[in-house]
Amino acid sequence: MAYQITLIPGDGIGPEVIKEAVRVLETVGDTFGHQFDFEEVLVGGCAYDATGEPLPRESLDSCQKSDAVLLGAVGGEKWDGLPGHQRPEAALLGLRKGLGLYANLRPAILHESLKNACPLRSDIVGEGIDICIVRELMGGIYFGEKGRRTNNDDMGEEAFDVEAYSVGEVERIGRLAFEMALKRDRKVTSVDKANVLESSRLWRSVMIEIAKDYPEVTLEHMYVDNAAMQLIRNPRQFDVLVTTNMFGDILSDEASMITGSIGMLPSASLGEGKFGMYEPIHGSAPDIAGQDKANPIATILSAAMMLRISFDLENEAKEIEEAVTRVLEGGYRTPDIMSDGCKLVGTAEMGNLIIQAM
Amino acid sequence: MAYQITLIPGDGIGPEVIKEAVRVLETVGDTFGHQFDFEEVLVGGCAYDATGEPLPRESLDSCQKSDAVLLGAVGGEKWDGLPGHQRPEAALLGLRKGLGLYANLRPAILHESLKNACPLRSDIVGEGIDICIVRELMGGIYFGEKGRRTNNDDMGEEAFDVEAYSVGEVERIGRLAFEMALKRDRKVTSVDKANVLESSRLWRSVMIEIAKDYPEVTLEHMYVDNAAMQLIRNPRQFDVLVTTNMFGDILSDEASMITGSIGMLPSASLGEGKFGMYEPIHGSAPDIAGQDKANPIATILSAAMMLRISFDLENEAKEIEEAVTRVLEGGYRTPDIMSDGCKLVGTAEMGNLIIQAM
Ligand SMILES: CC(C)[C@H](C(=O)O)[C@@H](O)C(=O)O
Ligand SMILES: CC(C)[C@H](C(=O)O)[C@@H](O)C(=O)O
Repeated sequence: MAYQITLIPGDGIGPEVIKEAVRVLETVGDTFGHQFDFEEVLVGGCAYDATGEPLPRESLDSCQKSDAVLLGAVGGEKWDGLPGHQRPEAALLGLRKGLGLYANLRPAILHESLKNACPLRSDIVGEGIDICIVRELMGGIYFGEKGRRTNNDDMGEEAFDVEAYSVGEVERIGRLAFEMALKRDRKVTSVDKANVLESSRLWRSVMIEIAKDYPEVTLEHMYVDNAAMQLIRNPRQFDVLVTTNMFGDILSDEASMITGSIGMLPSASLGEGKFGMYEPIHGSAPDIAGQDKANPIATILSAAMMLRISFDLENEAKEIEEAVTRVLEGGYRTPDIMSDGCKLVGTAEMGNLIIQAM
Repeated sequence: MAYQITLIPGDGIGPEVIKEAVRVLETVGDTFGHQFDFEEVLVGGCAYDATGEPLPRESLDSCQKSDAVLLGAVGGEKWDGLPGHQRPEAALLGLRKGLGLYANLRPAILHESLKNACPLRSDIVGEGIDICIVRELMGGIYFGEKGRRTNNDDMGEEAFDVEAYSVGEVERIGRLAFEMALKRDRKVTSVDKANVLESSRLWRSVMIEIAKDYPEVTLEHMYVDNAAMQLIRNPRQFDVLVTTNMFGDILSDEASMITGSIGMLPSASLGEGKFGMYEPIHGSAPDIAGQDKANPIATILSAAMMLRISFDLENEAKEIEEAVTRVLEGGYRTPDIMSDGCKLVGTAEMGNLIIQAM
């Protein structure tokens, strides 16, 4: 069977890390007899430079026609001065909306061999961290009405953004979280601010309704301020954490920092059906771009998530993940995760090692 | 001179910790020759139980007429089932609005003698943490329009909340943050989500304008997701952190957890002039209420903040703070901060020790 994959190398270290992930995918293809057809498109700052738009129509078209998208990273200081709609971030939001990606899955996993990288005290981390954050990605304050207005007071111009959630939007992300929990430790923590926000009260009531269809899963509610504390106090209490677009943006970054392995963490953005967009959670790191210093592991693990979720190739995904674990256990490290007694390698060499370990 | 202080003991451990703070204030009064007149009022769950309202008119009146308010804690599971406007949280929001408290100051300080309580690795904490979080408290999504509506689609009912900030609102909180920075390390980090939110773009542009009046202070902008990471990665980079009501709710709780000393942290809510409301950042902890187990230090330090900020009694404030430090250095601990080799004491005894140390 042939799988059509759109590649978005993007900006900064994006192209380097995508290159390694593609080599890994090609190795999987050869070993297991699958055909992966790649189409590379421009999105982000590089697209703006080439076409004047961060998300050209043809790029979005290619993504829409493919079975899955693999993205490196977009953005960089170079484009920070542009007006909002021309900035690389606008391309990301455009992809999410244009591809119907309403769910963002971000595993926050502490790899056994990277325990020293974890900023938390070792007694808090215990036997490791394994949280699956499910962030709503197509609604809330990111996509609500926004604008400026002047009120009849002496406070000057006002800017506003509307946080809104409908029952249907909460339903689909909630169900996805409960389905994830079924495959894991059967616990869902729904994070909201129901003591203040009306949208959170709707969110919470829908979660309670969904829970009735999943008697095997325990549902817990937590206020967002408390969640920000609990992730530090006792991250091991979480299994699946489901929340809004805005709260998910904050908490998923906090959770990844807690693992201390930002260069290692993949993510998946999903819509209806099997289609998905996969990307590392790290940024484009323009300061180290082109220097063979970037850690390609997060992108390689994103490719593994793609195989598992979009293509149902569980064994192939495991093969990649186990190869990564073996290479880390072998003591090989890119600069971002280097520690005493380990062997320093570059981007390409890390790719080689993972391919050899497969 | 006589100072009029309204006391809100509130719920759970509130009354116990307020009692110790009042004893400390009376000692200060005797030593330095000040007269503190206390009036105790009902706010929170206890007020609801007694009057059917969490914030009775007379209670708010008393606060409005006083020079400062000292609050223990409000809320508890007992009242969680009530409709929003009758819940203890509504009283808090009512006090903030009714007293014009637009700024919430929350120092996140790691006390030298409590280093073991910090959940971060000791190399990250280094010589300690001292961040002053300035949270906007009377605007944003907390007080914006909210409601329910049905759209013409098949997604069902929708709930919404409006995040809005005017130039005037950002000005006053921004100036307060820059003024704080002048008395500290002269750095302000303004946290927003200007790559997505229109209200954040206005927020950022006002901060940039204010900075022109404070050439001695360095202004830095940080996205909220990054701030949630940086607080863990390198908390020592922050001096004054200023942000919106919602982001401040999340980040200030994260920052206090990072210090590992929630029972130790005071807060001040300020409006125009010298008036302020002072309270510990911890909650009402109904599970340990009335058992002489609560840590009164956060409330006692809140009283010290009150002396400094509302009454300009700097020496008196220092006297209290130094007494607390001496007692901690003496190895005395309430259960929440107990560690090996320390002496366990109860709420009242901790109060005694601090009074003796003064
Ligand atoms: C770049 C930005 C718009 C984006 C977001 O806030 O969603 C990023 O922070 C992310 O989490 O993917
Ligand atoms: C109780 C709640 C409404 C309140 C808030 O969100 O402001 C609390 O979390 C706080 O930070 O004081």
